[in-house]
Amino acid sequence: MVHPLGSPMAFSFKLLATSNAARLGEITTAHGAVRTPAFMPIGTQATVKGVHPSAVRATGADIILGNTYHLMLRPGAERIAVLGGLHKFMNWPHPILTDSGGFQVMSLAQLRKLDESGVTFRSHIDGALVALSPERAIEIQNLLGSDIVMQLDECLKLPATPAEIERAMRLSLRWAERCSRAFEGAAPGRALFGIVQGGDDMALRMESARALVDIGFPGYAIGGLAVGEPQEVMLRIVQETAPALPADKPRYLMGVGTPEDLLEAVRRGIDMFDCVLPTRNGRHGLAFTRYGAINLRNARHADDPRPLDEQSLYEPTRTYSRAYLHHLTRANEMLGAMLLSEINLAYYQELMAGMRASIKAGQFADFSAATRETWDRGDVPLHS
Amino acid sequence: MVHPLGSPMAFSFKLLATSNAARLGEITTAHGAVRTPAFMPIGTQATVKGVHPSAVRATGADIILGNTYHLMLRPGAERIAVLGGLHKFMNWPHPILTDSGGFQVMSLAQLRKLDESGVTFRSHIDGALVALSPERAIEIQNLLGSDIVMQLDECLKLPATPAEIERAMRLSLRWAERCSRAFEGAAPGRALFGIVQGGDDMALRMESARALVDIGFPGYAIGGLAVGEPQEVMLRIVQETAPALPADKPRYLMGVGTPEDLLEAVRRGIDMFDCVLPTRNGRHGLAFTRYGAINLRNARHADDPRPLDEQSLYEPTRTYSRAYLHHLTRANEMLGAMLLSEINLAYYQELMAGMRASIKAGQFADFSAATRETWDRGDVPLHS
Repeated sequence: MVHPLGSPMAFSFKLLATSNAARLGEITTAHGAVRTPAFMPIGTQATVKGVHPSAVRATGADIILGNTYHLMLRPGAERIAVLGGLHKFMNWPHPILTDSGGFQVMSLAQLRKLDESGVTFRSHIDGALVALSPERAIEIQNLLGSDIVMQLDECLKLPATPAEIERAMRLSLRWAERCSRAFEGAAPGRALFGIVQGGDDMALRMESARALVDIGFPGYAIGGLAVGEPQEVMLRIVQETAPALPADKPRYLMGVGTPEDLLEAVRRGIDMFDCVLPTRNGRHGLAFTRYGAINLRNARHADDPRPLDEQSLYEPTRTYSRAYLHHLTRANEMLGAMLLSEINLAYYQELMAGMRASIKAGQFADFSAATRETWDRGDVPLHS
Repeated sequence: MVHPLGSPMAFSFKLLATSNAARLGEITTAHGAVRTPAFMPIGTQATVKGVHPSAVRATGADIILGNTYHLMLRPGAERIAVLGGLHKFMNWPHPILTDSGGFQVMSLAQLRKLDESGVTFRSHIDGALVALSPERAIEIQNLLGSDIVMQLDECLKLPATPAEIERAMRLSLRWAERCSRAFEGAAPGRALFGIVQGGDDMALRMESARALVDIGFPGYAIGGLAVGEPQEVMLRIVQETAPALPADKPRYLMGVGTPEDLLEAVRRGIDMFDCVLPTRNGRHGLAFTRYGAINLRNARHADDPRPLDEQSLYEPTRTYSRAYLHHLTRANEMLGAMLLSEINLAYYQELMAGMRASIKAGQFADFSAATRETWDRGDVPLHS
């Protein structure tokens, strides 16, 4: 997207409305707008698993997330750059956020060394030794052409010792500075986000947030959550961290979460999310619906002619019977994984759209209560 | 589809044009028309593997094939009938042909007994003992609601002894009679096809064809080919059998084949085909194109920004780069199998459409020569 005067559109965020702490907004990027609160489907290896880019768009997604770790190893960031960038490569002309690679390095790769300079690890694909520094993380994301670039940080699994949490938070802050410098001069339609770390220690979280705001970013993420801690711990940290971030910048809670997580985090002032749950669970026969999660592998669906949700805005959710989805899932047919991935992404987007509409109307609490009530009602079996 | 006067449309076949032995025609069924020569994608387990029904349609398919053997075992024909039939179950409102189950019983199941009455076998899914007779094969296909129903026959693998071939052919003829009686009273929009057997023995093939024509079917298949014999044997049998079948009925060559097989069989008077090759090969990284088969796993595609065929009528074939398809295939991403399955089905349909247009123009031989020339040219590497 090019500005009428010829220069690319600048990255910006507009806060449009609030409903208590919940926020309605819009991010502008060089590849289009992102309505917030936004859920970003995950396109790990330059594809949202099992879903055509056109179907990802049809579910209502404004933006997807790409994984720097996977893409740098295969097919390689330099290769994607020569091929015209990630948007063109994967036929997704809309906004893309890429993570820094740090999270996957620490969860997937065999780590060789982590020090001030960065991390060295062995690729989980071919065992090759690869180095990732704050500067290289930015370079890779620039090569990919991401609209939103994430700083390199160190992600700990919780629980961790206080000393470890503090050390990782301070290292992440120093890397934030280096990433900020490395990102200078990037095109105006793109943005670098800083990441708040500090584990479950609120004092460290506050220190991290303040230091990042001092550096100054066009958006802020809360990282190091959804890594094994109880939901109430996560929500408490979100609740206390969000207000410490500038109201006029987007706030992104990384790697979260279940539909309930999204509702509760939006209530606490979060604007952006990413999570593998809708596609991963879809591949395993689990559907997210207005009436909660439904396991299509269950034999009770074998003769059920009803669609998953007749009121869904997404045509496949209204069209295919539970009996058919059950059959596909039991028969391990690709189409089962494909349809349930789409159906789940569409439910997540419908939930986000519902939140956005309710914030606009100043009725987020009512929407939240009604949504919870329908989840709690649960799925009603055919012969009940 | 319901006739304006309220009765379902009768099954019919119109021969519209010929170009030497090649035939252009149109089949009418209760679910719509089938332009011939026609290629039928295979929807084994009530899904064309890895392809949305809407995408199957978008590739140009008028009709798909369902496998009675698979569907009777899972989810079960009676279940599909209660759910409204196979068209509704799999969201394919267009024509469907089902095979009789015989071929898969003999290739997939552990056969227990084959005698005059039918076959008894153990399900490859749960080991259950199942019986299939000519009458049951018709009943199952009626329950599925197929537009074109196939008789039960005995399929031998070639080579087989002359005595075996003759015995199987005569048994198949007696089963054709029983299937014909069992199909009496079926709705007028549907049709039962007889199947010519006789292995590679032309005298037996002629006898089989004559006897089936005496029974009288609205369409005829040539079965028991593409089961291990050389292509020239198959084409010789097709060449001699086709003229023995009534000119005013459709002719279906079962389980065939490669693009070259289709071209050569249409040249010899065949109207219908089915084959797993486009989808199965697509799942393994092989693309069928105007320039022959292309193996996307090959490293030479890693940096190739070109689509598989810029002149294709199918948008994904023109859109996705070889580099991207290579990446998806190497990374074992579902989207690679999905896109290549679609791309291959679209090529098959484009080939059929080309044959139909050339027959209409009386120029099948020219089309055939030009098609072969482009295949022989082969794919031109990027830096050549």
